Amino acid sequence: MRHRLEPASALPHPRLMPTYQPRHRLFVAAALAAGAAVPLSAAQAHYLADVLRLKAGAEVAVFNGRDGEWSARLVANGRRDLSLAILALRRPQASEPDLWLCFAPIKHARIDTVAEKAGELGAAVLQPVLTRRTNVTRVNRARLAANALEAAEQCERLTVPEVREPVPLPRLLADWPADRKLLFCDESGEGLAIADALAAEPRGGAWAILVGPEGGFAAEEQAMLRLLPAARAVSLGPRVLRADTAAIAALTLWQALLGDWRR
Amino acid sequence: MRHRLEPASALPHPRLMPTYQPRHRLFVAAALAAGAAVPLSAAQAHYLADVLRLKAGAEVAVFNGRDGEWSARLVANGRRDLSLAILALRRPQASEPDLWLCFAPIKHARIDTVAEKAGELGAAVLQPVLTRRTNVTRVNRARLAANALEAAEQCERLTVPEVREPVPLPRLLADWPADRKLLFCDESGEGLAIADALAAEPRGGAWAILVGPEGGFAAEEQAMLRLLPAARAVSLGPRVLRADTAAIAALTLWQALLGDWRR
Repeated sequence: MRHRLEPASALPHPRLMPTYQPRHRLFVAAALAAGAAVPLSAAQAHYLADVLRLKAGAEVAVFNGRDGEWSARLVANGRRDLSLAILALRRPQASEPDLWLCFAPIKHARIDTVAEKAGELGAAVLQPVLTRRTNVTRVNRARLAANALEAAEQCERLTVPEVREPVPLPRLLADWPADRKLLFCDESGEGLAIADALAAEPRGGAWAILVGPEGGFAAEEQAMLRLLPAARAVSLGPRVLRADTAAIAALTLWQALLGDWRR
Repeated sequence: MRHRLEPASALPHPRLMPTYQPRHRLFVAAALAAGAAVPLSAAQAHYLADVLRLKAGAEVAVFNGRDGEWSARLVANGRRDLSLAILALRRPQASEPDLWLCFAPIKHARIDTVAEKAGELGAAVLQPVLTRRTNVTRVNRARLAANALEAAEQCERLTVPEVREPVPLPRLLADWPADRKLLFCDESGEGLAIADALAAEPRGGAWAILVGPEGGFAAEEQAMLRLLPAARAVSLGPRVLRADTAAIAALTLWQALLGDWRR
């Protein structure tokens, strides 16, 4: 269901959808402004020249998470040395939902799915959380970030998710910012149905979703979470969801009910 | 976030969650009743004996989509010849949401994800649909069914999704049952926000979700869909979702707002 290239008139979200959409969209770290020259990394140059087979002069879209989205032209300075000539602003930077995803790391293929879907579903921060029953001890932050970044490039976001260092759950909760609500996916089933819990909240604001490991939260972790005033315990229905499904479901429901899916 | 084994008192959905939960849950085709002997296929025997390393006498749960869930004991009749002795009813069969997922086939890893998540998220039918921009022509029905069945076994459902033969979109719509509403994920963005569209509908009833291919629906397909009285065109927000993400998001929202996630 990738959106097709459509005239702006057919599009629902003028803030996010450009009039003309180049096929390729790239995140860069450098500042973006008309006339700027942005050097490309070896990996980016390889991707554009060898994988996509773009030639000098090809137009791409580029964003850096701060300066909006710009059209840019590919410039070849020499073999393997490519840069972008920044042309014109396509969309100004705009505020995006302030939603974190806190999740217990799971095995490779499934954690890749979580990072990709969190990118597509507009999470601002990916926070791995170590819990009592977390089996996966090593988190490949660079890999998570690469998956989330690729999803951000594809899905027309103007930002990329920030992937944080793993923290143990007790420390995460001890440092919890009082003004950030925590949607706690509580597999004990004692929480409200998630749609009812979210319907009772005002739109927007600072939120985080917390999803446990495949083994669920331990009893003392559940008790800790219930003591946190910012926490909202919710149930995701009668079937047993895998951790990756629970993360995607909670992100979806938050965006659809409190986030930017409503106009 | 796999649910832990909890006493029934802590569980939210007494209809679906048993008092004691054996580790392994198996779908079989045979009729289930106390005292019945159910032969296992070579693949099931291999899985139980060689992969899970269960011994004769081990207890498993078993369901067939018609007779509820039963406890059963593994019986060895000889090397490689295993059967189940059906013991007692654990949960009676109950009605489940009447939700189909109609989706344009996509590439391997992503279509596997769709089948698994549709299983977990309680779809009753998986209907592959061939559209103008469907790139994938061959659909491995057996593989889809195996993924959906494994998810159904894991997630505590009492049914497994039925995987149908692919049909071209025009034929699907020509034969569309008038009393089944069609939640059409319309990437043109002209639909209502999905949460608003679903909030306007009564709970339950017969529904289907329709998700297009990566290239989106062609203009004449969109026009056909708009003419169908049962169709409800909806938007899934400002970001461009991949086809698998759109399917998971729509299934989640339907279950959370109209399905069995609300008690």
